[in-house]
Amino acid sequence: MAHTERDKKKLLQRVHRIRGQVEAIERGLEAGQDCYKVLQTVAAARGALNGLMAEIVEGHIRSHLLDADVSPADRTEAADELVDVVRSFLK
Amino acid sequence: MAHTERDKKKLLQRVHRIRGQVEAIERGLEAGQDCYKVLQTVAAARGALNGLMAEIVEGHIRSHLLDADVSPADRTEAADELVDVVRSFLK
Amino acid sequence: MAHTERDKKKLLQRVHRIRGQVEAIERGLEAGQDCYKVLQTVAAARGALNGLMAEIVEGHIRSHLLDADVSPADRTEAADELVDVVRSFLK
Amino acid sequence: MAHTERDKKKLLQRVHRIRGQVEAIERGLEAGQDCYKVLQTVAAARGALNGLMAEIVEGHIRSHLLDADVSPADRTEAADELVDVVRSFLK
Repeated sequence: MAHTERDKKKLLQRVHRIRGQVEAIERGLEAGQDCYKVLQTVAAARGALNGLMAEIVEGHIRSHLLDADVSPADRTEAADELVDVVRSFLK
Repeated sequence: MAHTERDKKKLLQRVHRIRGQVEAIERGLEAGQDCYKVLQTVAAARGALNGLMAEIVEGHIRSHLLDADVSPADRTEAADELVDVVRSFLK
Repeated sequence: MAHTERDKKKLLQRVHRIRGQVEAIERGLEAGQDCYKVLQTVAAARGALNGLMAEIVEGHIRSHLLDADVSPADRTEAADELVDVVRSFLK
Repeated sequence: MAHTERDKKKLLQRVHRIRGQVEAIERGLEAGQDCYKVLQTVAAARGALNGLMAEIVEGHIRSHLLDADVSPADRTEAADELVDVVRSFLK
């Protein structure tokens, strides 16, 4: 967990922003806000989640696949996980 | 805002689930959870947001574009908004 | 098929560009091109296909959902098709 | 280019299928086919391109990031390229 630990502050800031967007969606729906406004907030939250994912995947690649201290077995596992993740958003 | 009003309960349930997922991402990062686990939760939240978006877009189409009571001007505006939304996730 | 007929030339130009990109992928693979180059062409083709899809969906919305001459039954069918398409890329 | 060379036959089969789909889109537009049919072919081609991309990315990870014979400099370059590709479809 090296990299999410090291990047924790930055990643948590992203998560807090996403949480704020999800709460804005909730308030918008509760208040009967125009659905186009709600959709724009949903689209923004989706973009922010994509950004968070890209950030964690990048950390994953750099820490678990590049780091010279990683054992071959751990590196292979990290590669399998990465392939899984890539396949999940290329479906 | 007819349709998000009518589907409010269902839509809010979806939003609550997404909020729970975002909170799980937050807790996972705070606790130094394995990054693959975090990524899987991020992917699940993204899928749930997509589902919410599809649901609202469907309501938008059925209420603002199909409903016979909608004025031509409002229908045109709803179509422009829909085109915007579609373009935003086909970028 | 009013709109794809009317926009035929523009749409076919897009398709020809995509076809050229797919042929470039093919040649790249045949020639043992660097895989990053191939991936960039694949990404470009994917972006171009998204653009084509957005263009056709926009025509679909404007012709089949907005046009005053469309019968209620045809409009409902066009809306169902659109919902299907939107769901397919929000999966 | 080890992996696209090794997987050449399989990758080319995928590309040929995509090319067939793009040609079907072209014929559909030329013939004034129902736009929903055209959209379904576009969606299928997009799915097939995603599959091709996933396949090449997987080969990239396994060959350039896992292989013990890769020099540290080449491995770093492969990681940078991968990060680029992942960011491009998480935009």
